[in-house]
Amino acid sequence: MITALAGGVGAARFLTGLVQLIKPEDLTVIVNTGDDINLFGLHISPDIDIVSYTLSGLVNEEKGWGLKGDTFECLNMLKRYNQESWFNLGDKDLATSILRTKMLKKGFTLSQATVSVGAYLGLKMKILPMTDDRFATYVKTVNGTMHFEEYLVKRGAQDKVVGIEYVGVEQAKPALGVIEAIMNSELVIICPSNPIVSVGTILSIAGVREALKKTKAKKVAVSPIVAGAPIKGPADKLLSGLGFEVSAFSVAKLYSDFLDVFVLDNADAAEKSRIEALGLEAKVANTIMKDNESKIGLAKIVLNASAVKCCSK
Amino acid sequence: MITALAGGVGAARFLTGLVQLIKPEDLTVIVNTGDDINLFGLHISPDIDIVSYTLSGLVNEEKGWGLKGDTFECLNMLKRYNQESWFNLGDKDLATSILRTKMLKKGFTLSQATVSVGAYLGLKMKILPMTDDRFATYVKTVNGTMHFEEYLVKRGAQDKVVGIEYVGVEQAKPALGVIEAIMNSELVIICPSNPIVSVGTILSIAGVREALKKTKAKKVAVSPIVAGAPIKGPADKLLSGLGFEVSAFSVAKLYSDFLDVFVLDNADAAEKSRIEALGLEAKVANTIMKDNESKIGLAKIVLNASAVKCCSK
Repeated sequence: MITALAGGVGAARFLTGLVQLIKPEDLTVIVNTGDDINLFGLHISPDIDIVSYTLSGLVNEEKGWGLKGDTFECLNMLKRYNQESWFNLGDKDLATSILRTKMLKKGFTLSQATVSVGAYLGLKMKILPMTDDRFATYVKTVNGTMHFEEYLVKRGAQDKVVGIEYVGVEQAKPALGVIEAIMNSELVIICPSNPIVSVGTILSIAGVREALKKTKAKKVAVSPIVAGAPIKGPADKLLSGLGFEVSAFSVAKLYSDFLDVFVLDNADAAEKSRIEALGLEAKVANTIMKDNESKIGLAKIVLNASAVKCCSK
Repeated sequence: MITALAGGVGAARFLTGLVQLIKPEDLTVIVNTGDDINLFGLHISPDIDIVSYTLSGLVNEEKGWGLKGDTFECLNMLKRYNQESWFNLGDKDLATSILRTKMLKKGFTLSQATVSVGAYLGLKMKILPMTDDRFATYVKTVNGTMHFEEYLVKRGAQDKVVGIEYVGVEQAKPALGVIEAIMNSELVIICPSNPIVSVGTILSIAGVREALKKTKAKKVAVSPIVAGAPIKGPADKLLSGLGFEVSAFSVAKLYSDFLDVFVLDNADAAEKSRIEALGLEAKVANTIMKDNESKIGLAKIVLNASAVKCCSK
């Protein structure tokens, strides 16, 4: 069994390579829910949807989020009604949140709603929210504290970050299966996701970091930072806002208490020895997933760092 | 001031003629909410939306409901998710119900939500739900009792009707302004709507029928039945299911305790004397609203039956 800790677009792209090499049934993806937000009366789970849409082949590949060929008529009409319309929820995409919200109102957990959506989309891997409890990532900026999606989408990550707050972190329990997946896997992959607001949130859930330290699984992370900048998203702004260096090394250091192997990009080969000095194995490789071949290539490197056998390609 | 009691499509079409002859600001439309239904986690008010969309010129004229050029991507995705998708809510149309539901959750009344939507759509007349309280029309059929929209849309009005039930009628108070509008008008128009599930529901609200009897307004109804059949909708099935004759006369009789004038179609001229025998004035005219000219023509006949002056055309 393989477990992956995932944020949104970067993780989802990596996983599309991975699932071509392993049995999807053997994969559990633990997804960040710190970005979850209530808008339009709906419970929206951005990262869960990105991962589910991407792995089912329905994602809008250009954007990395949302459904292929989706329209935005509801949103356009909400604009006419002077409603908050900064969150780009497409018309088809709305249906996912309608189903999820309906299930939550009926007393189902977010895990159960996620399984339902996955089943309808034909997914064979298990996708788990990191927690079924309320958890929201807030970004403290010089212009005030705001929900992560507000920081990212509404305000375009323009506000200088001075801190981060995980609202609900004290109460949030890992969703059923999260700790079990980590403990029972041969390999745990930390996907190339934001180390603060995607992986950091998952690691903040009670018991997760401890399970990562205890499990016999090989723990392999892929750097989301290449040549001092993230491939996508505001990781650089968040890292520097919190006083961290913006580098592959910096990410490796954040994971160094539980990690075995860190995969960094060719562009960052010079950081290899610093990372090794953290007590980690460092693998230099091409981490830019510009096409299917490079996605598979990167997944192979991660699998080869463990005892897991590639089963195809 | 003019007040109109309205159901959906027939009423809305009639009112588009009327508002070309009077100042829209002088018109209050009291709309049936017996069709209101909760679906997709949203409070949907079919008749309020039909009237609002029609009077703002945004309605899909072919269908008589929904918004012009609307798409159904959310609904298509809900089908994929195996969710109830028999109610044809378009993507733009969803936004109206999202706004309404949001306002209701915040503690606003249905009246207030209706005013908001109307304002954004640029409406100058006042549109009032008959009640701000829960009210739902259920149809008793040989195949069980069901919500009116389920009877009409989901099952295509195929089940033999044996009765009708107004759920909530004992508790429902008229919305603020309903009784006042009736009492302070010169003319109250009973639009060509279903006498059981559109006008009948409004008349069932405590105080409405009494206000219609007491007001000094001229009360003029337009027959929704022409030549023994409704122009649109299942009025024939409901009337006959409840043991009423399906005729203009039958509708006139249902209103005869408060009505002054009944406008019936040329095709039903033979019923004129029977209607007059109910103590009503009967006006035979063309009631088929096939184009704008005929809508205006019908509105003129209604206005001429009262002391209200046509102000244009």
